[in-house]
Amino acid sequence: MESVVPPGRDLDDLWARLRELEDKQALASLINRYIRAVDSFDYDAWGECWAEDAIADMGRGDTLVGREAIIAASRSSQSMFEDSGGVQHVIVNLEFEVHGDVAEGSGNLLFASSPDSVAAPPNRAIGGKYRWTFVRGPHGWLIAHTQLHRTWTVRRAPSVRV
Amino acid sequence: MESVVPPGRDLDDLWARLRELEDKQALASLINRYIRAVDSFDYDAWGECWAEDAIADMGRGDTLVGREAIIAASRSSQSMFEDSGGVQHVIVNLEFEVHGDVAEGSGNLLFASSPDSVAAPPNRAIGGKYRWTFVRGPHGWLIAHTQLHRTWTVRRAPSVRV
Amino acid sequence: MESVVPPGRDLDDLWARLRELEDKQALASLINRYIRAVDSFDYDAWGECWAEDAIADMGRGDTLVGREAIIAASRSSQSMFEDSGGVQHVIVNLEFEVHGDVAEGSGNLLFASSPDSVAAPPNRAIGGKYRWTFVRGPHGWLIAHTQLHRTWTVRRAPSVRV
Repeated sequence: MESVVPPGRDLDDLWARLRELEDKQALASLINRYIRAVDSFDYDAWGECWAEDAIADMGRGDTLVGREAIIAASRSSQSMFEDSGGVQHVIVNLEFEVHGDVAEGSGNLLFASSPDSVAAPPNRAIGGKYRWTFVRGPHGWLIAHTQLHRTWTVRRAPSVRV
Repeated sequence: MESVVPPGRDLDDLWARLRELEDKQALASLINRYIRAVDSFDYDAWGECWAEDAIADMGRGDTLVGREAIIAASRSSQSMFEDSGGVQHVIVNLEFEVHGDVAEGSGNLLFASSPDSVAAPPNRAIGGKYRWTFVRGPHGWLIAHTQLHRTWTVRRAPSVRV
Repeated sequence: MESVVPPGRDLDDLWARLRELEDKQALASLINRYIRAVDSFDYDAWGECWAEDAIADMGRGDTLVGREAIIAASRSSQSMFEDSGGVQHVIVNLEFEVHGDVAEGSGNLLFASSPDSVAAPPNRAIGGKYRWTFVRGPHGWLIAHTQLHRTWTVRRAPSVRV
């Protein structure tokens, strides 16, 4: 053996580093499932991404406390799009720091909604920055806290087409 | 040895988990090469991302069958941009599930094209959701099936500048 | 032991492959920190992402040489947004090739700036393609060279709201 590191400790280090990559992968996967759920109006699946006592500040001036309040607010703001329209959350540049069973994260948001997904441009669009805290539950990572800071905002009347 | 897991099985597990991370990395890399090829009008490189018998439903109402038909359709729809314009596929929020030599995936699309890349805004833009099936070939992963569902659509006459 | 690969070489291979995943993760993390710094107007943190002798061609016709010149150019072009506005760099589809202490990379850029982050649409937006060269320094990866090729460009007078 040429290695100066005892094999046992070496393997422990290797496992720890693999687990860190897996945790970051799992946190990115949580955000991807969050997007897929909310953009398909599946609020049950979306609710499973949040801790029961999660807190959300979506940059609208109020703070939502608890999974049920967070779901209700999204359901209300998105209901007009469920029939023929579309909603898209692009959440990228995901950066995570894992500390045991808690993690911090940040990301870029590009949001757009359209009253007619195959024919109409976005009637509303937002660019912003997310900050998150995550907790590890028995079935994986959950969002415990989220804060959205907007960078730009586009509002148009739903009937206007550019 | 403090570990309760036999070292042999432990290492097999470690390898399997590393390979899963590598497969997800390779699938993301396939999408990135796909983007780089199609946005630089390199249809030979783009064709290498698709299985020979791939099926593509790009949300335009028809289904393209076979690599050649898929390439021909893209070449036709993008040809007007090859001289001075630009085409950009942003494909993100990549989520993959690997099952041996087959994988499922989903992602967000933001597409924009412009008749003059340094001076003109997009004359066409699309937001949408991809679903994919991938197969592992002798030289790596290939796209076997893709389906695009649009979320929003912007169409402008090429000469209009906002 | 059922494996045909000698355990020692096997572990070396495993370590090398883990390190490659870690390097790609670290390079993505560099881009994410770059974004977080520049979009919060923290030019000291942003400067730490660049090699001292970095070269940047941002597609504006001139080439910036050295970290200080690169910082000065960004500070100048972004200063009008520091008060109430917002700046957002979305940099995605990150693809890296690592060769020892040097790496090549490419990615998609979506840039938008707004004179009033909670109320105004982007007054300027750019879509483009980055190509990078990175070098590994004593404290991690740094950007040594960057080149931006634009795909589309939106310019509006800051006072116009769509």
